[in-house]
Amino acid sequence: MRVLVIGGDGYCGWATALYLSNRGHDVAILDSLVRRHWDAQLQVNTLTPIAPIQQRLQRWHDLTGKTIDLFIGDICDYSFLINSLQQFKPDAIVHFGEQRSAPFSMIDREHAVLTQSNNVIGNLNILYAIKEELPDCHLVKLGTMGEYGTPNIDIEEGYITIEHNGRKDTLPYPKQPGSFYHLSKVHDSHNIQFACKVWGLRATDLNQGIVYGVLTEETGMDELLINRLDYDGVFGTALNRFCIQAAIGHPLTVYGAGGQTRGLLDIRDTVRCIEIAVNNPAEAGEFRVFNQFTELFSIADLAHKVKEAGAAIGLKVEINSIDNPRVELEEHYFNAKNTKLIDLGLQPHYLSDSLLDSLLNFATKYKGRVDANEILPKVKWK
Amino acid sequence: MRVLVIGGDGYCGWATALYLSNRGHDVAILDSLVRRHWDAQLQVNTLTPIAPIQQRLQRWHDLTGKTIDLFIGDICDYSFLINSLQQFKPDAIVHFGEQRSAPFSMIDREHAVLTQSNNVIGNLNILYAIKEELPDCHLVKLGTMGEYGTPNIDIEEGYITIEHNGRKDTLPYPKQPGSFYHLSKVHDSHNIQFACKVWGLRATDLNQGIVYGVLTEETGMDELLINRLDYDGVFGTALNRFCIQAAIGHPLTVYGAGGQTRGLLDIRDTVRCIEIAVNNPAEAGEFRVFNQFTELFSIADLAHKVKEAGAAIGLKVEINSIDNPRVELEEHYFNAKNTKLIDLGLQPHYLSDSLLDSLLNFATKYKGRVDANEILPKVKWK
Repeated sequence: MRVLVIGGDGYCGWATALYLSNRGHDVAILDSLVRRHWDAQLQVNTLTPIAPIQQRLQRWHDLTGKTIDLFIGDICDYSFLINSLQQFKPDAIVHFGEQRSAPFSMIDREHAVLTQSNNVIGNLNILYAIKEELPDCHLVKLGTMGEYGTPNIDIEEGYITIEHNGRKDTLPYPKQPGSFYHLSKVHDSHNIQFACKVWGLRATDLNQGIVYGVLTEETGMDELLINRLDYDGVFGTALNRFCIQAAIGHPLTVYGAGGQTRGLLDIRDTVRCIEIAVNNPAEAGEFRVFNQFTELFSIADLAHKVKEAGAAIGLKVEINSIDNPRVELEEHYFNAKNTKLIDLGLQPHYLSDSLLDSLLNFATKYKGRVDANEILPKVKWK
Repeated sequence: MRVLVIGGDGYCGWATALYLSNRGHDVAILDSLVRRHWDAQLQVNTLTPIAPIQQRLQRWHDLTGKTIDLFIGDICDYSFLINSLQQFKPDAIVHFGEQRSAPFSMIDREHAVLTQSNNVIGNLNILYAIKEELPDCHLVKLGTMGEYGTPNIDIEEGYITIEHNGRKDTLPYPKQPGSFYHLSKVHDSHNIQFACKVWGLRATDLNQGIVYGVLTEETGMDELLINRLDYDGVFGTALNRFCIQAAIGHPLTVYGAGGQTRGLLDIRDTVRCIEIAVNNPAEAGEFRVFNQFTELFSIADLAHKVKEAGAAIGLKVEINSIDNPRVELEEHYFNAKNTKLIDLGLQPHYLSDSLLDSLLNFATKYKGRVDANEILPKVKWK
């Protein structure tokens, strides 16, 4: 399969591009590199020293003999996008190319507008480009479990059958996103569903949970292939962030009561889920939604697991509940379904002591690069 | 009350601004006048000769002694928006200032992007402006009944209580919008709901049906106060369009089978609904949704009513079913609730022979201005 990974220079995108290439797919990366620019603007940095994309790809070629094409540009620039698609002619587009941080979107009005216009318009451009140039191309779009919020009923995969006043219909699952970033993904989902219905496009929306881990078989092959790992208050996510905090002796920052329950998955499962979606395309006209996570944990659970794993390797780990910068329920019902990817063959890597051990050791290796000023969350929702 | 009507130079906005002014509110209009510009670009025009906004307002002042302030500019320009709010200090903002045509949004990629970026970013700017400058100001936002699509269950007002696997929650009603325009309103609704939750803003989302009629007490006072009336394939809407077609002897253009059922209301009820919402503000933190229509009709019903009313005044009216340019169900269940505005005191003007008679006569008066080339729909959804 010819697979274009949009946002292939990012955390999930990079791991995915290498994995798909290693599995024998013809892969190209399209990326504007703006994620590195945002790091620079916010004066934050990945824990790991990531090489420029061109060096990464050269090293991949040298190691494996495989070539990954590179298109550097912005999908909000439609003519660039069209030209790239005409050159590469993908069978599937994996779309990671969005601003993906909730705190980033809540910094101020400019960042909220940037997030929604960048994400919504980029995605609209992809929909039109597929319609105009490659109507059979399968769009594999990264959504987020955060689209659902925390309803008091079970979360289904994209749709829910509702009985109401003696009648019944299966409708899009109601969305209660918790930031302007999460909202942008909800907007995307609605736009994609419409394009599938009206133009017969085929799309899979992957409502992904929180991804943890850093090593995949491919990114672990060489220092120049190393993946990014974010720990700062804007781009860092739970679990990865906790492991880095543990490594440098910073108390783990649990927001509020820590009863927030979320779906999580190992980055080695992210790349596998993408391949499963690519290998099993949606039908023409179908808007398919998979919930892409393997386990549910509360934030407090995660902190305790990191504390225990840290103790086992001699790290003294404290847990601090800090004022929640977000507006979210800290105790709530949460039961989300995730059978569709399993049914298609996903064999999860469940969170294990060995993964935590490996991640803690990895974080320790690079702890000299940590800027302690960037650890605490500075962006408030209110 | 001090009420800022954004989009106050448009069809609903103009009638609303004058009505609120006449009822004793302090009214200002904020408008970029881009609606007139789009008419020029598409080479279409209102049936009625509308005066420039400055002349309209001067005439209103001369006739009634009442002053309506005018702010000309674009809400996507945040500093202009903030400056206008700081000057006028509204108690309520009525937000009509969006691209409001479904066919316009479906012309091509550029018009889809224009519609979503204009509407979503303009609305985001308003949310931030209220938060920063006037946190108590009540946002009265025009949504559309088209946000709901045509589900096979009853349509509630914004929220639905769902029982699922033995648990229960009241969630946002699932949305199935039918164009990039309708999608933009769904995006707005999600963004507003979030702003109410996180910042404690107060907002009312008015999911309005198809508006018909042209005369209100105020716009009928003088030729210079006349309201716009669109009949073209892009901005014309069912019923108004049918009356104009009948007046000039053009067959009524029913799309497909005509079984599409929609909520409709008289423009004299639009202005009253807005006043009801303004006079009964939402609570701080409340995102309130009212379905703003008074009756349900199928498109075929409307065509038959116009045919009969035309016959009564000597017009020979034909009805033509034309290929449906849209992608929509032409026969479907549709039962939408609309009790909230009635409970707050709305006394509907139901569709009557006298209204149709008056609208047909009005259309006949201006029929010399019709460009017959602009009647048929040229924009296709597929």
